Amino acid sequence: MRVAVLGCGNVGSALVGILQSRADALAVQSGARLVIAGIAVHDLDAPRPAHVPRELLTTDAAALVADESVDIVVELIGGLEPAGALVRTALDAGRPVVTANKALLASHDGVALRTLARERSVDLLYEAAVAGAIPLVRALRESLTGERIHRVMGIVNGTTNFILTKMGEQGADYPSVLAEAQALGLAERDPTADVEGFDAAAKAAILAGVAFGYDVSDDAVLREGITGISADDVDFAKRAGYVIKLLAIVERSGDEGLSVRVHPALVPAAHPLAGVRDAFNAVFIEGEAAGELMLYGQGAGGLPTASAVVGDLIDASRNLAAHTTAPAPDRQPAHLVPEADLVAGFYISLDVADRPGVLGAVTTAFGAHGVSIRSVEQEGGGTGARLVFVTHRAREGDVRATLTDLGGLDVVERIGGVMRIVGAA
Amino acid sequence: MRVAVLGCGNVGSALVGILQSRADALAVQSGARLVIAGIAVHDLDAPRPAHVPRELLTTDAAALVADESVDIVVELIGGLEPAGALVRTALDAGRPVVTANKALLASHDGVALRTLARERSVDLLYEAAVAGAIPLVRALRESLTGERIHRVMGIVNGTTNFILTKMGEQGADYPSVLAEAQALGLAERDPTADVEGFDAAAKAAILAGVAFGYDVSDDAVLREGITGISADDVDFAKRAGYVIKLLAIVERSGDEGLSVRVHPALVPAAHPLAGVRDAFNAVFIEGEAAGELMLYGQGAGGLPTASAVVGDLIDASRNLAAHTTAPAPDRQPAHLVPEADLVAGFYISLDVADRPGVLGAVTTAFGAHGVSIRSVEQEGGGTGARLVFVTHRAREGDVRATLTDLGGLDVVERIGGVMRIVGAA
Repeated sequence: MRVAVLGCGNVGSALVGILQSRADALAVQSGARLVIAGIAVHDLDAPRPAHVPRELLTTDAAALVADESVDIVVELIGGLEPAGALVRTALDAGRPVVTANKALLASHDGVALRTLARERSVDLLYEAAVAGAIPLVRALRESLTGERIHRVMGIVNGTTNFILTKMGEQGADYPSVLAEAQALGLAERDPTADVEGFDAAAKAAILAGVAFGYDVSDDAVLREGITGISADDVDFAKRAGYVIKLLAIVERSGDEGLSVRVHPALVPAAHPLAGVRDAFNAVFIEGEAAGELMLYGQGAGGLPTASAVVGDLIDASRNLAAHTTAPAPDRQPAHLVPEADLVAGFYISLDVADRPGVLGAVTTAFGAHGVSIRSVEQEGGGTGARLVFVTHRAREGDVRATLTDLGGLDVVERIGGVMRIVGAA
Repeated sequence: MRVAVLGCGNVGSALVGILQSRADALAVQSGARLVIAGIAVHDLDAPRPAHVPRELLTTDAAALVADESVDIVVELIGGLEPAGALVRTALDAGRPVVTANKALLASHDGVALRTLARERSVDLLYEAAVAGAIPLVRALRESLTGERIHRVMGIVNGTTNFILTKMGEQGADYPSVLAEAQALGLAERDPTADVEGFDAAAKAAILAGVAFGYDVSDDAVLREGITGISADDVDFAKRAGYVIKLLAIVERSGDEGLSVRVHPALVPAAHPLAGVRDAFNAVFIEGEAAGELMLYGQGAGGLPTASAVVGDLIDASRNLAAHTTAPAPDRQPAHLVPEADLVAGFYISLDVADRPGVLGAVTTAFGAHGVSIRSVEQEGGGTGARLVFVTHRAREGDVRATLTDLGGLDVVERIGGVMRIVGAA
């Protein structure tokens, strides 16, 4: 079984290493020896680990994909193009593709590529695109395929989970922990894709497809990052029995609706997601019959991601030999629920003037929009005070209207943290 | 696709309900409508949920299995016989079998049945036999099939995890929590199979096969239950930063060896397994490339177990249509490591006389067998005192020899809790 590898960064070189060192075991599992046909790279002379065979390198990815002797294509270039065109060529020629490319899969092109794969009866497998080594896609596609899934909530970005874990455990503020993550190589120099939730949004879009059978592209995902979270927010959450996590959430809403979103949330400390620390990922699944499930593991890194690619490669190889493909049911366009109609409990922190009557004015604004207060805590002293509210479940539109009114009050000096609470009464 | 259901208890009747209520969705996923051909029961008149169609009931399981019009057999009777003979008949006739029968699979008969299924090129699927709804077997069989797995540690018995969780959180002792579990229906009137680790041992044997490719039967699993755990043990564990869990552990030892065992262990509070509460199950997997993974969910109950059966049914149906089977690689007999050669850190609690020289006599016994002490804590007062030791990693044979010597010392009044520590230095 001849395998073309496109891209030889961390994941690609880890994959080449596994295909070499585990060749015999993989041959037993695949039913055929997995032989590397070629490795497409941008620069032949870039530094690479010694185990990557130089004689297999080529800069002509298109020719490698078009090579009639290639059986399976592994795409590890990332990004939309040229990766998209290469995947399209391979599928069009009837060659299965294994990819870790979340951006491509979550784009509008991703929908077209899945359709093409179905039309050509060829595998397009992407276990590595969401939550790295965690066998999530296969679990949803095969084990839980008969299950009616109500909700999927995932910690799917290791960088932000590392930052939030450190903020929670060290009481440090966002800028200093971000700097620490950058120094450790856990955050990019430009951390936007991670900390603003773009990476998690792409994964949420893919999960909407795999878990719910709806086509959603990443630009339709409601998205909020972690840059506005203060040490005070983290401190309040801890005292109130919560942990702050950046969650990718996909859930049914009514009979037809779907909500797909990424935002920080207060998670009860006893919830399984609360214990997911550092750069680990985890996806919590609520199904009608299966109940609560969680899959936990390393969401990134060369070896873990390559491990997921290897699982897909074996699958593709076995399917080719059996003239079959992995299940890829039809997908429907999603009816996305408008943000204003989402319902959640909220944490809201306000800096207010420290004088009589303030609490009355503020709570009146909540009441005017039907937002019911579960608890309020006053911290204070000096020239101002802080009011921290936890609301009962309320429509997001009503909460936003409340915040607008609060912003217009003389006594409100600043609206601080505003975050949804997961699992609130 | 005509499905024979053998057994109609909690799982069977939940399965029948799912096959009815989700019929259309399952037909899409399976590629064929799953029709119940018959339901074999022991007593036609036993009380059952209203949704179970009486006209499909039969007491003649053998005839149902032999029915030429049946495509797939689901075995939910449990126990060795007649379940074993029925499964054998079905496989022999080339009919795929889906089963939740851990006792059968972990027995010597289970090895023969897997061999028969391979010879007949027919699926024998058993996702529901280990950790209920958790998609563990498929993850190990397919996603991680290329992975070299070092160790699998599972909380695979909900009853004992419920008991240990309550002991830990309420400070209650074993007998009172067992009574509570029995009152809640979480423990049997005769709790032996759960609390003495027999149920977990069967699952450990199955995991040895699925995760490592070794044939192990349940009678070869080293086994220790939770009945000897005292509130004092739990209390010490908590103060020292541990949680006590009953673990099923399968791990490589050296190049060829395998250790398969069930015993209570002290797990560091920050370990993902420590947060698995109440009757939930979880399996923690350490792989060479994938790193640390954990799969968490409901390990028992009618609906969750039926959910796992449904996943296998869809698989079997798709495989039948494609004239293929799920991967079922050859297995090797295991070289099991003798208990004495296992290495772990240990927690050891001793009641001793409260007089000078006791600590010296006791630590001399440790030293004589090369067991190195990491910490010792003395609690005391009154007529006696308690010494609580945590050892560095030591051969279990040396620890047992130390305990024998300690038992012979005048100053040692009682050897209390002795437990292994997972993840100790």
